[in-house]
Amino acid sequence: MKILVINCGSSSLKYQLIDMENEQCVALGLVERIATKKSILTQKVDGKKYIIEEPMENHTDAIRVVLGALVDHEHGVIKDLSEIGAVGHRVVHGGEKYANSVILNDEVMKGLEECTKLAPLHNPANIIGINACKALMPNTKMVAVFDTAFHQTIPEVAYIYPLPYRLYTDHSVRKYGFHGTSHKYVSDKAAEMMGKDIKKLKLITCHLGNGASISAIQNGKSVETSMGFTPLEGMAMGTRCGSIDPAIVIYMMKELKLTVDEVDNLMNKESGLLGISGVSSDFRDVNSAATNDGNQRAQLAIDIFCYKAKKFIGAYAAVMGGVDAIIFTAGLGENSSRIREGVCAGLEFLGAVLDKSKNNVSGIEAEVNTDDSKTKILVIPTNEELVIARDTMALIK
Amino acid sequence: MKILVINCGSSSLKYQLIDMENEQCVALGLVERIATKKSILTQKVDGKKYIIEEPMENHTDAIRVVLGALVDHEHGVIKDLSEIGAVGHRVVHGGEKYANSVILNDEVMKGLEECTKLAPLHNPANIIGINACKALMPNTKMVAVFDTAFHQTIPEVAYIYPLPYRLYTDHSVRKYGFHGTSHKYVSDKAAEMMGKDIKKLKLITCHLGNGASISAIQNGKSVETSMGFTPLEGMAMGTRCGSIDPAIVIYMMKELKLTVDEVDNLMNKESGLLGISGVSSDFRDVNSAATNDGNQRAQLAIDIFCYKAKKFIGAYAAVMGGVDAIIFTAGLGENSSRIREGVCAGLEFLGAVLDKSKNNVSGIEAEVNTDDSKTKILVIPTNEELVIARDTMALIK
Repeated sequence: MKILVINCGSSSLKYQLIDMENEQCVALGLVERIATKKSILTQKVDGKKYIIEEPMENHTDAIRVVLGALVDHEHGVIKDLSEIGAVGHRVVHGGEKYANSVILNDEVMKGLEECTKLAPLHNPANIIGINACKALMPNTKMVAVFDTAFHQTIPEVAYIYPLPYRLYTDHSVRKYGFHGTSHKYVSDKAAEMMGKDIKKLKLITCHLGNGASISAIQNGKSVETSMGFTPLEGMAMGTRCGSIDPAIVIYMMKELKLTVDEVDNLMNKESGLLGISGVSSDFRDVNSAATNDGNQRAQLAIDIFCYKAKKFIGAYAAVMGGVDAIIFTAGLGENSSRIREGVCAGLEFLGAVLDKSKNNVSGIEAEVNTDDSKTKILVIPTNEELVIARDTMALIK
Repeated sequence: MKILVINCGSSSLKYQLIDMENEQCVALGLVERIATKKSILTQKVDGKKYIIEEPMENHTDAIRVVLGALVDHEHGVIKDLSEIGAVGHRVVHGGEKYANSVILNDEVMKGLEECTKLAPLHNPANIIGINACKALMPNTKMVAVFDTAFHQTIPEVAYIYPLPYRLYTDHSVRKYGFHGTSHKYVSDKAAEMMGKDIKKLKLITCHLGNGASISAIQNGKSVETSMGFTPLEGMAMGTRCGSIDPAIVIYMMKELKLTVDEVDNLMNKESGLLGISGVSSDFRDVNSAATNDGNQRAQLAIDIFCYKAKKFIGAYAAVMGGVDAIIFTAGLGENSSRIREGVCAGLEFLGAVLDKSKNNVSGIEAEVNTDDSKTKILVIPTNEELVIARDTMALIK
């Protein structure tokens, strides 16, 4: 069976068609600039690109073009839409209601609407994508896979903020955590690579990309994670500030006279690597400025990124009472040996010793610790789409 | 020589007269409700209380009464004010300008005024106290000792927030850290108790009181601390929330329609132990509710407090690449064996093993780890006044 995985943003849409016989991606693609006259679809099959440029008024239009590309005589990969056994949708926020993936029906759609207040920027686009798919494939089963679900095992002591308790009971303000499918995928894969039962492991998974989060996975369950009520908390990221003194938010409004929206924008769009370096939110640009131009603020941005990750690793070792493996994934985690080296420097007291020569890898599964390192250090390319496809497959059976 | 130490708040004033021959406190006292008709001074000498109830219109009035109490024929401890060799003033915020204590002159007074924008709640009261003292003792040398100074050794990678860099350069937004005199005192004392050179030690000092902060002290220098731009960041405290997702501040304003001042007040006065438990900001009340009444939210508040401290200890071990001793001080750190046990549970991977029987102490210097614990766990009553007196003595010599 083939499963279509859809990840719908407000003006873009990513998709993969996965053959569940061998769990291989048959086609993947990206639609950008939905609802503009310059909408564009880029599909890749066996490394070959197929591009469609035409106005797509809305997400239904976009999905129609996606389905057309998949069945295209020349560039497609299937003959008929009936070959798509089910659709798995990534949904950002499942609140406390969804601790697992779920088959989409009318009741669940209502539940998603209720979660929208917790993720006003993300869930509406996810819901639009689901509705557009349903309109075009009314008889195909669909599943929602939540970014938050894997973290629903985090205990109260970690998810309750030290705020008036009514903010939790009346307004659902608590830590949710995100990137759940990624943390789940790489922790399962790590246990497999180690040849150990995940139910006996203490893992720290570092999802370091433009968005970044770190999780403590004990006995296969998420017990702590760095993102919180929203994806702003925790690590410094491409443009996000992560955790700061909350009084700075007040200071920016009272003393610097910024509006709530300006502060919101500053913390989400102008901070992180971009804010510190002044160069770019893209690590490659920042790294180049630091390395080739001797830009000190660019170097500082990289150092701060690594420093914060290191602190989370120490904190999460304390949460679990030790750590058996540290896993790096996502854009920077998979591809930047420099970031991995910066993060691991000084973690020898945890028994984690990086092998600098083995660490010289990019985008492949690899063990990069020294042979006698007590704690493993692993590079594992994430595959959120595969987790979504697997969950979808399991539910529709 | 005797040194008077003054810690001036907005409506209260604490003082100690310390004999530097033996570093003993000769008299200590507290003035409350300054600028009301119910002003009251309570002075203690050799455990005996001397109380003066009379209206004190302002801080000058209060200090006049303090000086009167010190030279009182019956209840005083000195014959004449000339016996006070110098006055040391606690000042909350020294900004980046003051990395050390300093003799107060006109130029420094200007500097303190400049730091006021960084500590609008604290520095004005400190300045009023200094001016009141100068008016009454114009020929006595005075020294300012800053709560922030000890943390000025924290490196850039720890003190720069991942915000637009201009917030640092143009508005001095950075991590400063507080409780500096306390962290310095207990780290020096820890080295002494261990019989080791502090320049070769990695220490984690936990100042856990109504306000709470944790510091990493490497080779005698503060390299990281949990409070930040303001004393709100970091640990959950009596009424303060500590670090939370900064997006919650935005959420409370945009979705819950709170004003900036309401959010400010909620985070500083209604959160922490009080907010979670709904019982009290005082640990003794919360502990009693948890223990005697089986109050689950009170238990949760205590668990969260310990959990957060444990995470900081893990993070700071990662910052220093290990830890030689964990030190507990201030109200809860010195007196609550329960808090120390909660914080240390699960830190055995750091080589820190608490001895539950030795841990049954309160308010005295003690080593509370097991005999074979690689990492020491120490209880050390703090003495910020003595640090202020020592710095004052050293500067006026």
